[in-house]
Amino acid sequence: MKAAVLSEINKPLTIEEVSVNKPGPHEVLLRTTAAGLCHSDLHFIEGLFPTPLPVIPGHESAGVVEQVGAEVTYVKPGDHVITCLSVFCGTCEMCTAGRPVLCTNAQVKMPPGAASRFTWSRAEKLNQFANLSSFAEQMLVHENAVVKIRKEMPLDLAALIGCGVMTGYGAVVNTARIKAGDTVAVIGCGGVGMAGINGAAIAGAGRIIAVDTSPTKLQLAAKLGATDLVNPKEVDPVEKVKELTNGGVEYSFEMLGTKQTVEQAFAMLRAGGTATLVGMVPFGQKVEFHGYDFLRERRVQGSLMGSNRFRTDMPTLVDFYLSGKLHLEDWMSAKIKLSEINEGFANMKAGKVMRSVIVF
Amino acid sequence: MKAAVLSEINKPLTIEEVSVNKPGPHEVLLRTTAAGLCHSDLHFIEGLFPTPLPVIPGHESAGVVEQVGAEVTYVKPGDHVITCLSVFCGTCEMCTAGRPVLCTNAQVKMPPGAASRFTWSRAEKLNQFANLSSFAEQMLVHENAVVKIRKEMPLDLAALIGCGVMTGYGAVVNTARIKAGDTVAVIGCGGVGMAGINGAAIAGAGRIIAVDTSPTKLQLAAKLGATDLVNPKEVDPVEKVKELTNGGVEYSFEMLGTKQTVEQAFAMLRAGGTATLVGMVPFGQKVEFHGYDFLRERRVQGSLMGSNRFRTDMPTLVDFYLSGKLHLEDWMSAKIKLSEINEGFANMKAGKVMRSVIVF
Repeated sequence: MKAAVLSEINKPLTIEEVSVNKPGPHEVLLRTTAAGLCHSDLHFIEGLFPTPLPVIPGHESAGVVEQVGAEVTYVKPGDHVITCLSVFCGTCEMCTAGRPVLCTNAQVKMPPGAASRFTWSRAEKLNQFANLSSFAEQMLVHENAVVKIRKEMPLDLAALIGCGVMTGYGAVVNTARIKAGDTVAVIGCGGVGMAGINGAAIAGAGRIIAVDTSPTKLQLAAKLGATDLVNPKEVDPVEKVKELTNGGVEYSFEMLGTKQTVEQAFAMLRAGGTATLVGMVPFGQKVEFHGYDFLRERRVQGSLMGSNRFRTDMPTLVDFYLSGKLHLEDWMSAKIKLSEINEGFANMKAGKVMRSVIVF
Repeated sequence: MKAAVLSEINKPLTIEEVSVNKPGPHEVLLRTTAAGLCHSDLHFIEGLFPTPLPVIPGHESAGVVEQVGAEVTYVKPGDHVITCLSVFCGTCEMCTAGRPVLCTNAQVKMPPGAASRFTWSRAEKLNQFANLSSFAEQMLVHENAVVKIRKEMPLDLAALIGCGVMTGYGAVVNTARIKAGDTVAVIGCGGVGMAGINGAAIAGAGRIIAVDTSPTKLQLAAKLGATDLVNPKEVDPVEKVKELTNGGVEYSFEMLGTKQTVEQAFAMLRAGGTATLVGMVPFGQKVEFHGYDFLRERRVQGSLMGSNRFRTDMPTLVDFYLSGKLHLEDWMSAKIKLSEINEGFANMKAGKVMRSVIVF
């Protein structure tokens, strides 16, 4: 099969011929149908987070089951699935506490004893990324890294749910658990931020303030349910949000991962408010808050992949799409080929696209 | 009446003759029976937080109602009460949301038009502290700054509930809402920290790790329910707590208010854990966290006065004392006279006492 390989940080991906192993007892072999280009792929490609190289990146995908391992009963060949990097064991302390997204059971990441799920002509071991490696024509994954979905769901749009949509929507609905009527600000209106805004609208938020430097993205945010648009190029976003909300929002969401926007998310809270951090702050970088500002019961919390229990959350998101509540078409801005992947990331970096999806 | 007055930052308090006004319609005049010396009084005396001077400090007290204003129906002369600095209006957005501790209604802080509740021989206005000013033989307060208690309750011990006990117990029970079986670490075992440990024990915490540099305080912590004792003079508290708990605690509590201990409280959390900040970090000082560490759903939150709804919480704490669950005698280490107040603060600063209480 063909796969896009990152061999060196900050270098273009190369399309390589790679063989994928046969499924082990609890593994599933998928034909990849679509894979989104996510900002966190770019972070890894640029070296902001360490990852072993060479690697096939990609972690936002959907596909069709081709073959299943001897012990797999959850899916069968022909089933449509969304993949999720939050592979879970179902038996550890975190899984049984209802937080499978925090599962740390290494057994489900890679079968015991296996060095790699791939073979190729080069000598080095080819690494799998996020237990998925979606920028490839096939994926070999643990059975608990997929969720079955209705066949009416278009698989190119389904791919988006696998990371960005789950992450943004889940931060609002699962992590922060906003309730109808709450005031919300979302900083950063890329794919994840847009899913947060759409999620806040679905959950009935009273005021949804979108914060982004791109007028185009702000316009789309308004279409998805934002009630107020704030452009930090024009006004101080913290002052503006406080002015709009009589002192600050109840819930803010940081969807970018920069020190500045994390600190802004905290600063725009009213007393008793909660900032939820979704963006990945570069490894090693610290964020700073005035200790005194915590006194009036403000809170900062991280959200990982939307605190998902993806086996139940993703079918719900599919239902929301099919019933017209989740506007996935609006943030899929380009369908590209695997061979166009480097241009896809260049366009993302230039802020030209909301989400590009590789269609196989 | 006699009152202890702070006229200049970092200078000894002076005992002054002061007159207190007659109660306005919604005010209550109390005879102070006992007032605890709290670490946050010391913070204000030392100028770590700004407060208008001259002022009568003190905010942890109990007393007997002497006189009530025309509109007051909640108490009558002779009632025993605990005071609370969390005076609330009962009608604002925060009060009606069940968070009266965040009430910001200025109307209940001081009657409209009143410059001061005191008169004295000096020309400057004498300020009330925290709407209470407990280091005085009498207090004139808003009716919503007191809670009636059972007359069986000793008033010297009741004073402690008014701030330190409510703050520590409430951080654990109200703010963090720990459940039976949870793992808990408490950094700082002064009066507030001890109330947190006692609260965690009442709430059935599974593992209660006390962290303090004083062996005496650690021994008392063990008596109150701590299962493990960690002295940062002997071991790195973060490493030790992680070792004791297989990776970190579910709930940590910072009861001191220093940058270092706030950061330690966050660092000793397991994935998905919550650090609750109780100590007052000096105004203007920042605390720093690795942005990356939020990713696995860690959380930092402030707790103000134990997120109290003191009209219901304090009678519960009185019940806990009278039923033998709350060990107030254990952390009242000295009863002193108003005239000994400066020695009391000197002993606190030297770490010689858990809690000194002025008995009038």
